[in-house]
Amino acid sequence: MSIERVRRHIDEHREEALDMLKDLVRQPSVSAQDKGVKECAQVLADLLRRLGIAAEILPTATQPIVFGEIVRDAAAYTLLCYGHYDVQPPEPLDLWQTPPFEPAVRDGRLYGRGTGDNKGQLIAHVLAAHAWLEAAGGPPINLKFVFEGEEESGSPSLAGFIRGQKSRLAADLVYISDGGLHPSGAPTISLGNRGILGLTLVARGADRDNHSGNKGGVAPNPVWMLVHLLSSMVDPTGRVLIEGFYDHVRPIGATEQRLLATMDYDPKAFAATMGLETLPMDGPTYWTRIMLEPYCNINGFLSGYVGPGSKTIIPSTAECRLDIRLVVDQTTADILTKVRRHVAKVDPRVQVLARGFGTMEASRTAPEHPAVGVIADAIRRCRGVAPAIDLASGGSLPNAVWPSVLGVDHIGVPYANADENNHSPNENLSLDRFYDGIHVSAEVFRALGDAAARGALPRRAAR
Amino acid sequence: MSIERVRRHIDEHREEALDMLKDLVRQPSVSAQDKGVKECAQVLADLLRRLGIAAEILPTATQPIVFGEIVRDAAAYTLLCYGHYDVQPPEPLDLWQTPPFEPAVRDGRLYGRGTGDNKGQLIAHVLAAHAWLEAAGGPPINLKFVFEGEEESGSPSLAGFIRGQKSRLAADLVYISDGGLHPSGAPTISLGNRGILGLTLVARGADRDNHSGNKGGVAPNPVWMLVHLLSSMVDPTGRVLIEGFYDHVRPIGATEQRLLATMDYDPKAFAATMGLETLPMDGPTYWTRIMLEPYCNINGFLSGYVGPGSKTIIPSTAECRLDIRLVVDQTTADILTKVRRHVAKVDPRVQVLARGFGTMEASRTAPEHPAVGVIADAIRRCRGVAPAIDLASGGSLPNAVWPSVLGVDHIGVPYANADENNHSPNENLSLDRFYDGIHVSAEVFRALGDAAARGALPRRAAR
Repeated sequence: MSIERVRRHIDEHREEALDMLKDLVRQPSVSAQDKGVKECAQVLADLLRRLGIAAEILPTATQPIVFGEIVRDAAAYTLLCYGHYDVQPPEPLDLWQTPPFEPAVRDGRLYGRGTGDNKGQLIAHVLAAHAWLEAAGGPPINLKFVFEGEEESGSPSLAGFIRGQKSRLAADLVYISDGGLHPSGAPTISLGNRGILGLTLVARGADRDNHSGNKGGVAPNPVWMLVHLLSSMVDPTGRVLIEGFYDHVRPIGATEQRLLATMDYDPKAFAATMGLETLPMDGPTYWTRIMLEPYCNINGFLSGYVGPGSKTIIPSTAECRLDIRLVVDQTTADILTKVRRHVAKVDPRVQVLARGFGTMEASRTAPEHPAVGVIADAIRRCRGVAPAIDLASGGSLPNAVWPSVLGVDHIGVPYANADENNHSPNENLSLDRFYDGIHVSAEVFRALGDAAARGALPRRAAR
Repeated sequence: MSIERVRRHIDEHREEALDMLKDLVRQPSVSAQDKGVKECAQVLADLLRRLGIAAEILPTATQPIVFGEIVRDAAAYTLLCYGHYDVQPPEPLDLWQTPPFEPAVRDGRLYGRGTGDNKGQLIAHVLAAHAWLEAAGGPPINLKFVFEGEEESGSPSLAGFIRGQKSRLAADLVYISDGGLHPSGAPTISLGNRGILGLTLVARGADRDNHSGNKGGVAPNPVWMLVHLLSSMVDPTGRVLIEGFYDHVRPIGATEQRLLATMDYDPKAFAATMGLETLPMDGPTYWTRIMLEPYCNINGFLSGYVGPGSKTIIPSTAECRLDIRLVVDQTTADILTKVRRHVAKVDPRVQVLARGFGTMEASRTAPEHPAVGVIADAIRRCRGVAPAIDLASGGSLPNAVWPSVLGVDHIGVPYANADENNHSPNENLSLDRFYDGIHVSAEVFRALGDAAARGALPRRAAR
């Protein structure tokens, strides 16, 4: 059976696989600092070609995208594997045990910036494809690879790129491996993420600070403006009071309810990870709030004098920063309009500034999507344990481009160890996790091919 | 007539008066830095004795008080003149045209730290008493002088000192000259001030900042706690919602209503001084709010990240600083209790810290007090114009000690020019204002003596 030969090939070529990952990590590619990104695109494209995969470097207005494909029959089922070859800045350098761009193996892990996030994960798909090419003449489905060079900088060109390359990128599903497994090592499937809308509210009173004795009662105080505006926006339970805010929130279906009830939850242990004694809620409530409900967060507030001693002033300005986490079917544009309308009604003196930090749309693939079960089975075959299904992450990722621009669903399967230290010093990828990742990719290709062959998967033509 | 001889004496001894003030200014007395304060007490006591006034230096736990008196008949009407010989720190020194402790006359003003605040004003009373002694054998009333050395540091020992010296300080009225006249040069009488209660509210969520995506909706956000607590404390019009907050606010009487209606007010001009376009209220409302109504002010608010860019966190703590301005008959202790009770009811997670910065009680002498008319007449005789009656200043001063500890009313008459630059570089006192001040003091002594003689003034025995 061909999958056996593929597995054997993967196991017999571990050293070469690790060397390829090292080559990739050795090439810095810090998008925030525009350091080595274009050189890394070249290294990656060369690697794909060396492995027998047609590859091109496609420029965008910012950083290039490395595109690769193995298409034997244009009508066959097509999986688009997405990843990013850019990395976070390595600073602070003095906290690294070995230099960030000199990959080093210690205690069964490869250390280096980008090992887990995301070079080791994206190359797992490529190595799985290569194993299929070598051991079975090719994978059982068409594969497309989109590896971008600026995910760590908010993917500014990705949506436009996809829009411009729609037919070339045409696929039946997008597959993403990023982030880490459960701390226990248990595998997970991630079906989406919340969106984020970043805002700053600025209230202005007088054009200077005033004496709170001499003017207290007659001069307007901008902190009070924000306090009353904010309390009109969100109630003490966290429910947002802005008209129409919940209009498009998708009702929670039966499958979601079932999955929520089975999700891992321990109020004491979970509370401890965030610095609390316990959590006053049950598991389904906890997960519903993070994955399926929006939340309006205040991440910063500044007004007046906050240094040592005191200053009895009426401050001239007050500023408050919000990040509103949105769920699927809500859009940042609609919510921004509603926030502006609310503020204009309650206190038009307050300015609403849309700050572009990581504004992203929410996205979610339905848990009933047939590919979810197919991929879960593939993982169980590789890992011996069924993955947990995460309906969405609470945080925000640029995944909405797939359904909204390319018109195709996305499924994520993290390959890295939970303690990969992504974005931190001493980033690493467990070698076990790396090799397992290659196996999972290979198995996923097979499982999707089998399911597509029996007509069990939705196809793009049917959309 | 003896007042004519007193006036002549004042006019003929201007040079000596100025020299005495210069001697006093030359001696640094910075209470905040404990620099020269005790030496200045000695200079001042010596000066009093040289002018024929019995004087003593009375120690307190902190800075000494210079006490002087001219008592011919213990049963006669007694005025206690209060002032302070300590000064603000002179820094920043490079902004002074001439050194702060080297008094210099330029363009009809004496420049130097303390010229206006308060050495030039307190010595005016002493010089007026001296003129009465020289020209008429003594003033027509008993005079007591209490000059403290730490008003600029919040008068920490004053109340205790008065409590310990009650019989020695026994008086029928306290008379205070501090601060400046109206910018137009018009004289004013000040009958009181609002009190101040300084508080800090601290809300704590988790013991660390959390990711607002991964934890947003389940981890508590301390900014939201403060927003909801604060909006339950004060409504959007500024009315305080804390139970019992207005219990002791004294109703506004007919005399106050009449005075409020006649007080100087120009919405555009007043707005300009505080950095606003205009004020959306009439004069009586403006003055009522500042003088006769309490106000709950937020002078500082800090939480989370407020630097460049953004940080999508749920902050672990939020802090808000309040100064509550109180009016007469409200007390800081009662209001603190009521704030604590309110917070305990609405959100017991929030801590209320009583920060001691300048906590002071409100104080007000009734405008119907017979001495108000007597002193107003005296000012009109000296200045040719009747003074405006300020029911209270919006700011806070340590005047409550007089009614609450000594059991006697207080009346303030500022002698300095409005642009005296007190607390700032190039502090100065107009020589005209200085000499006028001596005349006003002399005339006030005569007027109170006349009124007391005809039984028109309340006496301490009658209290």
